[in-house]
Parts: sequence; structure tokens; C-alpha cells
Amino acid sequence: MTTPRVGLWLIGACGGVGSTATLGLAALARGLTDTTSLVTALPLFDGLDLDGPAAFVVGGHEIRKAGFRQTVRELHERSNVFDAATIAGCDEQLAEWEANVRPGTVLGAGSTIGKLAEHAETRKAATPRAAIDQIKGDISAFKTTHKLDHVVVVNVSSTEPPFETGAVHESLAALDKALDAGEAVLPASSLYAYAAIDLGLPFINFTPSLGATFPALEAMAVARKSVLGGKDGKTGETLLKTVLAPMFAHRNWRILSWVGHNIFGNRDGLVLDDPVNKASKIKTKDQVISGVVGYKPQTLVSIEYIESLDDWKTAWNHIHYKGFLGTKMIMQVIWQGCDSLLAAPLVLDLARLALFAQRRGEVGVLEHLACFFKNPHGVQVHDFFEQFMMLGEYVAKAKGG
Amino acid sequence: MTTPRVGLWLIGACGGVGSTATLGLAALARGLTDTTSLVTALPLFDGLDLDGPAAFVVGGHEIRKAGFRQTVRELHERSNVFDAATIAGCDEQLAEWEANVRPGTVLGAGSTIGKLAEHAETRKAATPRAAIDQIKGDISAFKTTHKLDHVVVVNVSSTEPPFETGAVHESLAALDKALDAGEAVLPASSLYAYAAIDLGLPFINFTPSLGATFPALEAMAVARKSVLGGKDGKTGETLLKTVLAPMFAHRNWRILSWVGHNIFGNRDGLVLDDPVNKASKIKTKDQVISGVVGYKPQTLVSIEYIESLDDWKTAWNHIHYKGFLGTKMIMQVIWQGCDSLLAAPLVLDLARLALFAQRRGEVGVLEHLACFFKNPHGVQVHDFFEQFMMLGEYVAKAKGG
Amino acid sequence: MTTPRVGLWLIGACGGVGSTATLGLAALARGLTDTTSLVTALPLFDGLDLDGPAAFVVGGHEIRKAGFRQTVRELHERSNVFDAATIAGCDEQLAEWEANVRPGTVLGAGSTIGKLAEHAETRKAATPRAAIDQIKGDISAFKTTHKLDHVVVVNVSSTEPPFETGAVHESLAALDKALDAGEAVLPASSLYAYAAIDLGLPFINFTPSLGATFPALEAMAVARKSVLGGKDGKTGETLLKTVLAPMFAHRNWRILSWVGHNIFGNRDGLVLDDPVNKASKIKTKDQVISGVVGYKPQTLVSIEYIESLDDWKTAWNHIHYKGFLGTKMIMQVIWQGCDSLLAAPLVLDLARLALFAQRRGEVGVLEHLACFFKNPHGVQVHDFFEQFMMLGEYVAKAKGG
Amino acid sequence: MTTPRVGLWLIGACGGVGSTATLGLAALARGLTDTTSLVTALPLFDGLDLDGPAAFVVGGHEIRKAGFRQTVRELHERSNVFDAATIAGCDEQLAEWEANVRPGTVLGAGSTIGKLAEHAETRKAATPRAAIDQIKGDISAFKTTHKLDHVVVVNVSSTEPPFETGAVHESLAALDKALDAGEAVLPASSLYAYAAIDLGLPFINFTPSLGATFPALEAMAVARKSVLGGKDGKTGETLLKTVLAPMFAHRNWRILSWVGHNIFGNRDGLVLDDPVNKASKIKTKDQVISGVVGYKPQTLVSIEYIESLDDWKTAWNHIHYKGFLGTKMIMQVIWQGCDSLLAAPLVLDLARLALFAQRRGEVGVLEHLACFFKNPHGVQVHDFFEQFMMLGEYVAKAKGG
Repeated sequence: MTTPRVGLWLIGACGGVGSTATLGLAALARGLTDTTSLVTALPLFDGLDLDGPAAFVVGGHEIRKAGFRQTVRELHERSNVFDAATIAGCDEQLAEWEANVRPGTVLGAGSTIGKLAEHAETRKAATPRAAIDQIKGDISAFKTTHKLDHVVVVNVSSTEPPFETGAVHESLAALDKALDAGEAVLPASSLYAYAAIDLGLPFINFTPSLGATFPALEAMAVARKSVLGGKDGKTGETLLKTVLAPMFAHRNWRILSWVGHNIFGNRDGLVLDDPVNKASKIKTKDQVISGVVGYKPQTLVSIEYIESLDDWKTAWNHIHYKGFLGTKMIMQVIWQGCDSLLAAPLVLDLARLALFAQRRGEVGVLEHLACFFKNPHGVQVHDFFEQFMMLGEYVAKAKGG
Repeated sequence: MTTPRVGLWLIGACGGVGSTATLGLAALARGLTDTTSLVTALPLFDGLDLDGPAAFVVGGHEIRKAGFRQTVRELHERSNVFDAATIAGCDEQLAEWEANVRPGTVLGAGSTIGKLAEHAETRKAATPRAAIDQIKGDISAFKTTHKLDHVVVVNVSSTEPPFETGAVHESLAALDKALDAGEAVLPASSLYAYAAIDLGLPFINFTPSLGATFPALEAMAVARKSVLGGKDGKTGETLLKTVLAPMFAHRNWRILSWVGHNIFGNRDGLVLDDPVNKASKIKTKDQVISGVVGYKPQTLVSIEYIESLDDWKTAWNHIHYKGFLGTKMIMQVIWQGCDSLLAAPLVLDLARLALFAQRRGEVGVLEHLACFFKNPHGVQVHDFFEQFMMLGEYVAKAKGG
Repeated sequence: MTTPRVGLWLIGACGGVGSTATLGLAALARGLTDTTSLVTALPLFDGLDLDGPAAFVVGGHEIRKAGFRQTVRELHERSNVFDAATIAGCDEQLAEWEANVRPGTVLGAGSTIGKLAEHAETRKAATPRAAIDQIKGDISAFKTTHKLDHVVVVNVSSTEPPFETGAVHESLAALDKALDAGEAVLPASSLYAYAAIDLGLPFINFTPSLGATFPALEAMAVARKSVLGGKDGKTGETLLKTVLAPMFAHRNWRILSWVGHNIFGNRDGLVLDDPVNKASKIKTKDQVISGVVGYKPQTLVSIEYIESLDDWKTAWNHIHYKGFLGTKMIMQVIWQGCDSLLAAPLVLDLARLALFAQRRGEVGVLEHLACFFKNPHGVQVHDFFEQFMMLGEYVAKAKGG
Repeated sequence: MTTPRVGLWLIGACGGVGSTATLGLAALARGLTDTTSLVTALPLFDGLDLDGPAAFVVGGHEIRKAGFRQTVRELHERSNVFDAATIAGCDEQLAEWEANVRPGTVLGAGSTIGKLAEHAETRKAATPRAAIDQIKGDISAFKTTHKLDHVVVVNVSSTEPPFETGAVHESLAALDKALDAGEAVLPASSLYAYAAIDLGLPFINFTPSLGATFPALEAMAVARKSVLGGKDGKTGETLLKTVLAPMFAHRNWRILSWVGHNIFGNRDGLVLDDPVNKASKIKTKDQVISGVVGYKPQTLVSIEYIESLDDWKTAWNHIHYKGFLGTKMIMQVIWQGCDSLLAAPLVLDLARLALFAQRRGEVGVLEHLACFFKNPHGVQVHDFFEQFMMLGEYVAKAKGG
């Protein structure tokens, strides 16, 4: 039996997260880095038939004129990450994979993201349906050209403005009818999701954008035997909240207020500097605490673009809580992490777990992936440790079977 | 059926923790405060037959000329805790309970603690055996006088210097023989533990001192049908470590170094300013990280007495870790909490759970109490959430039966 | 020669700052507190003929139904400040001074402040001129009733929305003409300023509101022989900025970005939660850094109302700067202070220094008070140490003369 | 008139500070970096006849087998400082200057520093006098070989253990007599100082070691017309203290306690991990606060070696102070800086200012350099802004003349 060859198709491929995930795959395949920070490299997953780094080919969609190598070089120079030897050792591979990147669509992505678009071909699709077909064509060609057994599609593009769903999103029939009529009923993230699902491929939404998180596409995933995971990768401050809030809950301390102030300077920060796009992000960040403790303390989340920080993000958390006999106490957490490096390994974990689930014949929303997301698709649990236990139980069952 | 009347016997009764626990009991019984920060008030425990605050009578041993009321007043004035109405409403009750406090022993407590002793009667016991008998007499008299159904003994006294155990601590026979010979084979904390166990009473060691954590007394607890819990209440920085370290483990981040710097200004801080006593504390604080992650990052724990802080403790944690592609990142946590208020509710939780277990006929070490302790007696698990799950499973079983 | 009796007339008298200043005066006069945090109690001022605490009588304007005693009690209970003995010892005095408080005007104060108004008499003035006359009448009556030699007027009320000045504010003649015509050309803070100056009294603007900081009132101050000081007391984060920024300047470090995030929960915070009022505050806070270093790094100042903090303010500062050979470094400052306690002593310092200057025959803007203000009236220097030197030179000269 | 050629002779040349200063000189001379963080590049110094970077030739003593290039490469790889282009552009120059480095002496440097020594030639000097002669020979040869007009000697080596001075250090005659007798009356830092001074060269002691800070060498400096500056470069936490403490003083706030906890992982940290060497450092760090405020708050300074941090130092400062009406407040400062990059530009500043002073004919201790040192030689002023003003006055006078 030969090892399957698999494809990782990234939406927003050449951004910081996509480029870092791509570099990481290449470096892991060449033994130029260790598996630190890959969840799926934990002993828990030993013996599970996950695709190894060497099995992957990378491609994707991108609206800017950008390549993996340029982004990697910029991250190295501006944010002081990656060592020179790793970059040099992966350069050829990244060049090869760059050739797989196709112009993306900005149809429905909002004006701030639209402004980033530089590809001459980008805006060609006249209707949503045409955009979907173009996306499907790109992914299918990728699969054929590289003789891939499976392909997983992961959205790592910039955050779109909030998108209100309505009756048309409740059933696939209604949605298809609107699309046939050429109506603009889907944001870009959902056009990609539609395309991936229609091809029967796993679709992972690592962003807060709508993607496949509504009934019509959920039903389509079941029909096409596609698996879904989302949404919004839990990489930083929100992870911390879902780790610390359970402590407050189990110790019966009353959280009075939780202020989270995030500053960073990468392209994501620039997009989030548009209040419309920021709204999507803050929404998924702000709900987790009450999701854990069961009441609503005053919360405040801010995200600000500070250019000098480049890809480094500082999150200041100020937690005010009441202890015994009414005594107020304070905990503050300052987290300094590099955004792309926090996110990229999770992208690889999710790709591996989605491909694994697809091969096992699972369909629809993968609830055991909750621990990877700020706003887990189909799951109300926010406590990180409860979520991780769900993953552990899934793995145990998968090994058992 | 009448509600049982129970006694809480505190070793080091009139220190900050003991006095706060006592004030808390009185305030809870009078409805002057809510149950915030009592773990046993969580919905998880609903329906469990735990003793209510009004069922308790408080007494204890104390080596200083001190009373609950004076300590409460000092905490109020110096550390700005407790509101005036609560203090006033409980004053009479505290005065009544103060009358139950007896002079403690400093035999085997070390010289720094010895210097705190002010009671004229304190040093009278000529031998360890005599000290044990005196302790037993005091507790028995308390039980009789107040017509108590049960009494639980909780050690909340200052930290003793480390005590090396040897062959004599391996069996009760060997220990008894040494005691009969008048040998100084037990530190003060273990004299109290011996007395409590010999009376068949639950014994909780909230301090890092030796207490009952060696084979001879463990065996004695089984023989006398006493239950044991310890050691060293997990109240602050260590709690945080056992909450955060699992996150690093589950995300496969490599902790490079963890620095914890604690400053505070209460009597505990003064005792811990003696390097000999501090050694006990740092030992129980420093082991938990490797206990969770399975390797030994560089760790550094310091505890310093800063007079101006009074009962407020600031813990600064600097965690340096390695993420994806070798990238080093930093998390810092600053916790400002009031020491006595963090500890006291756990004393009440432990007292209630120990009395409950004793009534159910359990004997020996109560492993389900692990989440309350820095160095849980009989348990190797340090992950707070795993420990809390052990408690949850115990409660579920207790309800089931 | 007898000691002069002086009056302190506070606009917004019964807010946190006014009530704390009043309590402080009473406590100082009774020896119930020491002079810590009074700048004018430094040895530098020894030998200067400043009015002692016992010389003061307090009165003021207030739009809410509030009194010094109630505010003091609330601060004590909610924010854990002032000890009970100090409050008790000053209670009678505060009651006496409360009787001097008169209903204020909300004419021109903006809608958010307007909503705070509770006094039945508050809105009676039909025109700005009528409001000014009412204010003058109140202050004159205070002076007469208490047989005061001098009165100083200090504005410690809530921050008004920004107010655009125009041609009418350029000369006193133009201003008077507009006022005579009943035009709404002045915000409330300037109505108070007009009244004070017209009476020839010192006027101190401790807020970011307009007050007397425009040519018409500056000219009037010279004409009426009144002295002026303002604006916006430099109490916290801005003080820190003007202390730290000079270090960066003198070490030739390049500040890349300076983020200041302020959270607090008092009435000021509530008023500043209205974006219109907040704009005034952020403006005076945001200019000081470039004022010191001579270039404009990216700055971001946010002020948020977090109810649970009451009068305690936490300011988180994140300073990103470039050192030698392009190396980026970070300094973070977390300041936890009690707003009213930071401000009140400066109010007393300013009152004393303004009365002193007035007695010496100075007129117009007192530039030597720059170190007390975020946006010093008539001065471009923001470096705190340069400002303090200006004060030192003034004192030296005053002693010399 | 031709530009003078000057030499910078570094004691401990190839450590982090020495190598960074050397790289900085080369980069500045080639226009590969800007003058950020050079104090002497401030406009204040415009028009002063200071030596430009291109005028310098570097040499020095070193006890380890190390070179500028290796240290620079290590700093780049481990601590992520310096960009690759700068290193490459200066490589040839650094190689050339490395050839000027001579084996140093460990005579009197203490055992921890002694262990670092790797040079075969290092320990050859049999007596202090022989070591001095060897040092003088090395420096003289450097000057001759490179046809240098002036040479400045700067000690940037590791911190020695504290050294008690006695009667023999009070006069040059007594010292010389002891040296003639072969007595071990000088630590290594003072042997270097003696050599430099005896050659009539400027000597700057950037370390806390003894160097020239005692009467015998001070007198010798006057006799030989050498200028002196020291001691212990004020690069980080202490700079911060001398910037912030004046704020507390000028605002009449009472500092109750100041805790400074420093962690870092470079060679200096390793040497300071020896408690004997650390004692020297903590002594110079701990005195500055009382030097500014005039009373002694509780202070605590700790310096700990945390390997993973490499050359990055984190300093956590916790300042507890009393404000108005007895209210306690807290300020915390967290400074993350790269040790070598903080120190190296000051070494260049001091070299330039010392050469300038020497050329002007000044002799003995240069008091105007106080702002560069933790423990300024001959000066009691610790307030950074007062110190900086001393420098400003000196520059003004120098320009005037």
C-alpha cells in the first residue's frame, strides 16, 4: 500500500498564516524543524493514520500579487522569525508550490479586503455562480495535475465584515435558486466553502467569516459527504480566556470584568482596523467568557493596529474578580506572541484531522475539533479542557475502531 | 432527624487564614455574605449532605497571644479587607469562639516559629508524647463541651522547616516505640496530626509541613478510621501554574523557563523570610510544572517579605516558551490577591468534604481532594482540570450511592 | 497681623475630586493625616507664605443632589479608601461646608453632563449672562458670609464635549456683545471662568474643558487682575508620559509607538464613556509625547468605563521603541491608582499657589504651574522635569523678593 | 588639519557589550545603521569636536578564546539581533580588529571569572606589577602599530566580586610600595586602570568592579593627566529608577517598597549567578532610590540567570507607594531590552566624551558623565535629569570656550 498524496488548498494562501503553514510543512518534511506546537504530534495521536508532512502538496487562492517566499522573507526581516537556514532549505519547495497559487475572488469580501486585491484576473467572475465554478476549476486542476488522492481546503484569508443570513440560507434549494438568479447572497468565504463542499472536499474555516456555518451548506456537506470545521482559529487571547475562565468557574470566583486589549501590526491588523471587519472578530472573541461561566460579566475587547509591532501581537488582559467575603482581586496577563506562528501549526493540525475524518467516512460538522476554534461550529462548549477532552475521546474511539 | 453539630478545630487558629475562615463561617451563618469562592457551594454539590455554616463551632490551638477579632481588625485596617458591617455583625460570635482557643505546642516547629510563641503555657510539654496527649485532651474537651457530633482538625499554621523522615516513620510500631522513648521524631505538625488521627478525627494539612504524609500515620488513619487530606493549599501562583501548564502541554508548546516571583507582607511572609522555612514552600511550589508537562524546564520560584503589602500578595510569572518553527514567545501573569481570602474558603470546603467523607465511612487519604493542594497527598496528578474531574467523579458517585 | 481667611470655591464640588480635596483640607487642619502627596509641602516651599489648611473655608457649585459626606462614604465603601477615623473626625466640618454648596448651571455643559443634574434649581438661568450673574452672586455671598479675605475658584467638574472657539472669543468686547445678545457662545466651564475673573478671583481649570483658555478671558483676567491656571490636571498616565518620554529623548531612543489604555469606573468614567466628552480628554492626553520628543510616533489612547473598578484606575502603557543597531525593545507600565486621591492634593496645591500669586499682585496666566497640567495654559513645555524646574525657579524668585 | 585617528581599547573586548560596540562603530562608519541611541548624536552635541566613527580603531584584552565575529554571530542567532546585511557589511572590519585583541589577565578577577579564561597565555603574569607591565605593553603596541593619536581604555568585562579597599589604597606611594612587594592588593579591573592611567590614557569603568575608584588611582590620574569615568553603566533598570524616583519625589509621594526582579541569560548573567559577583552589582543598583528621595524605602533587587532568555533581559519593577490621605497605590514597570544593545552605544558615547575631555586638557574624574553610570564616580547626584543637566551645562561651557 502506498502513502496517499494529499493537497492543502489555502484560501488567502500567501498571507502570514498561509505562508508560515507552508514553510512549516516544507521544513517538517525536510527535518529542518521539530514538531513543537503541532497538536497532532502529541503522544495522544500516536498510532493514528494521519498524513505526514511529506505527503502534502500546497496550492491556493490569493487576491494579492504575493508569494510564499516574499511573505516568509518579510516576516523574517520585519518580525525576526524563522532562521535563515530553514528559509534557505525550503526555498525551492516554496517556489514550486507558489506555481500552484491561483487568483482568488473578492466578490463579497467587502471593500477593505477588496482594496488589497492586485491580481489582474481577480475580479473577472460576473456572478457568484461563475466565481464558484472558477474556484472549483482551480482546485480540480490542482488535484489532477498533482495526482492527489485527497485535497483539504482551508480558509486563512482576512476577516470579512459581518454577513447577515436570512431565509435564503436555510435550505440548499433556496440558496441554489438565488445563486441561479445571480443574486449576491454569499460573502466570498461562502463562495469558497460552496465550491469545496460541492467537490466533496473537507472545508476548514480558520477565520471569523461566514464560510459554511449556515444550514444550506451544512446540508450540502452531508449530501456531498464533505466534512466541515470552523470557525475562527483559537490562537491567542481567546485560548487564554477559555483556559482561565474555567479556573474562575471551578473556584467559584465571580468575574466582575474582563478587559482584553490587543495590539499588533500585520496585514490582519490593517484589515481589522476597519471597524466593519473588526466587528466580526470581536464578536467571536467576546462571547467565550459567558459561555464558560454562565453569566455575563462586563467585557471589553479591543483590537488595534500598531504598525511597529509587525506580526507580533501583545494582548493585555485585566481580570477583575470577587473572592471570599466580597474581596476584589485582580489578575493581569500579558501575552506576546507572533500571530502567524500561533496560527499556522493549527492549520496543519486541522488539515490532517479533516483529511483523516474524510477518509474514515465521517460527514458534516466535525464537533471534536472544537478546541481549535473561538466559535466552534455546532458546539456550545467553550471550556478549553472540556473541548480537548472531546478531542481525546474521538481519538480513543478512532483508535478503537 | 436533627442536623449534626460539628466542630472545626484549627491549628494556628488566630492567624490570617484561620481568622478569616472563622469570620467567613460566622458571616455565612448570618447571611452577611454570599457563598462566592466556596467550591462546595457550586451547583455540582447540590443535593450532597454537607454541613451548613450554621452547624459549625470553631476552636483551635494558637501559640501567640492572639484572637480572631484582633486579627480580623488588623486585616481590615492594614489590608483593606472585610466591610465594617460584617465585622460588627460577627463580633459576638467570634468572641465566643475565641474562648475555645487553647495554647499550642511549638515542640518541633523550628526556631522562627518558636519566636512567635507568646502563650505562657505554650512550652510546657516535656516530651512529644506529652504534647500529643495535651492536644488530644484539648480537642476532646472541645467536643464534649459543645456536644459536637464530629470534629475536623485543620492545620493552618505557619510553614515549618523541611523535616527528613526515616525508618522510624515507616511503621506505626516503630514510631510509637520512638515516641515512648521520648525521642524528637516528629515536627509539631505531625504531633497535631497524630493526636487528631488517634482520636479518629479527620485531619487536613493545609500547610507544606510534614503533618500526616508518611506511612506510619497513613496506616494509623486506616486503623483509627480517620480520613486525611493534604498538603499545602493550592491558593495562588501554584493554582495558576496547574491551570496554565496544561494549556502549554495540550498545544505542544515547549516551556523553556518559568519564573515566579512572589511578594507579600503578612506573618506567613515573615516566617518564610527564614530561608529554612522557605525551602519547604518553594519545594511544593516548584515541582508542579514538570508534574504536568513531563519534562523539566528551568524554573525559579522566589518568595519575599515586603512589609508594605500586608496580606496582599503579588505574584509575577514570566513564562518563556517555544512555539512553531522555533519561535520564542512570552506570557506574563501578574496576580494581586489577598492571601487569607484566597485560602480561607478552601479551608471551609475541605472541612465540609472531610466531615462528609468521614460520615460516609471512608478511611485514609482522600485522593479526590487533590485539586485543593499544591502537593496532593497520595496523588501524582497536578493538572488542575484533571484534579477537578476527580472531584466531580467522586461527587457523582456519592450522589449515586 | 492676623492669618488671612481664604475660601476654596469648587465647581463640581461634590464629585470625587472635590469631596476628597475637601476631606483632605479638613483632615490636614485637624492633624488627622500627614502632608504626603502635597507638592506644596515639599521642603522647596519652606518659608513661602502659603495659606495653611486651617485657613480654608470650602464652598462650591454642584448640579447633582450630592454632598461631601455622601461622596466620601461612597468612596470609602466602594473603593476602600480613607480610614474610618479620618471620616469620623471630619464629619462635622464637612456637614458645615456642605451648607455652602449652591446649585450649579448646566447651560452649555452638554447632554451627558446635563443628565446628571438633579437640583431643582439647576436650569433656571435663561441666558448665559443670567447664569454668570447667578454664579457671581453665589461666590460673593460666600465671601461675605464667611468674612473671607480671598477666594480661589477651581473647576473640578466633569469633562465637557470639545468646544470650538471662533472670532467672538478673540476679544472681550466681541464676547460681551454676544453675551449681551443672549447668544450661547460659552460652555458652562467658561461661564464659571467669566464669573470668577469678573470678580477678580483666581480661576483654576483642573479639567480639559474650555474654561478661560481663550484670548477674551485671558485679556479680562489681566484687566480684572485675576490669575489663571489650567488646564486638565496631570494626575496619572499623562504625568507618566511626561516623565518617561524625556528619558527616551535624552537616550536618543526612537519611540515607535505608545499605547495607553485606561480603565476605571467612577462618575468621570461614565461621562467619558460618551465619545463626545471623551474626545476632549484624549486630545489633551495624546499630544504630550510629540511635545517632548519632537516627532510623532504612533500613539493610541483609550479610556474605558469598567464599572467594577469604581474610583480605581488602571493605566496600561505599552511603549515600543528602537534602540541601537535597529533593535526594537518594549517597556510596559501598569499604574493602579485611585483617581480622586491622585487629583485632590493637586487641587489644594493649585489653590494655595494661585492665592499666593494673587496676593503678590501677579496677573493673568501663571506659567509656573505648568507641571500640574496635561495641557498647560500658555506653555509649550511638556517635559515634567523642565516644568518642575520652572516652578522651582519661580519659588526661588518669590523667596528672593 | 587632519582628523585624528583614535583607538578604543576594550577590557573584556569580545563579550556581548564589547562586540556590539565594535560592530556598531563599523556599521556607523559604513552608514549601515543610523545613530539612534547614541547620546552624543543628539542635537545638543552639534558643533562639538567629537571623534567620528570612522576615526576609530578597536583593540582590547580578552581572557576567553573568542572573537568579535563569533560573539556577533551568536547574538544574531540566539537573541535575534542585528540584521544579516549589517553583519556581512562589517565582517571584514571585525576580522581586522580581532587581530588587535590580546590575552587578558585574570589575576584578581575572582574564581568565577577565572573559570571563563581559555587563553593559553592568560595566566602568565607572576605578579600584579608584571600584569600591569604586560597590559601597558599591549596598549602601547596597539597605539604605535596603528599610528593612533589617542587611545581610550574602557572596561566592559564581567563583574568582579566586591573588593575591600584599605590604607594601601589611600595614596599612590602606599600602593606602589605594596605592588613593588608583589602584594595582591588590586583586583584585575584596577590593574587595567593602573596601566591605562600610567600611560596617561582616559580610563572608563563601565562595570561595578573597583577600577580606578579609590584615592591612589584618582591621584595618579591627576598626576599623569588622565581622565576617569565610572562606574557601572546605567543601562536599564537603574536608569528607570533614577527617572521614576524623581517623579515620586517631586509629587511628594512616599515610596513604601520598590522591588526589582531582573532575569536574563547571557554570560554576564552566568557570572552574576555567583552570589559573590552578584553582590557588587546589587550594591550599585540598590542605593539609587534613597539617593534620590532622601529616605530608605524597603528595596529588593534580584538578578537571576534564565538561560532561555539569552541576551534579552526582563526587569519587573513593583513600586508600592503612599499617596494622599494614606492611600496605597502601585506602579509596575516591565522592561524587555537587549542587554548588549542597551550598553554598547553608551560605551561609544563615553569613549568619545573621554577623548574629547582629554584633548581639552581636563584631568581626573569627569563628573559630567554622571548620567551614564549607576554609581557615578565623584558624584552624589542620582536623579537622571539632574545628571543630564550637568552634562548639558558641560557641553554649553565647552562650546562657549
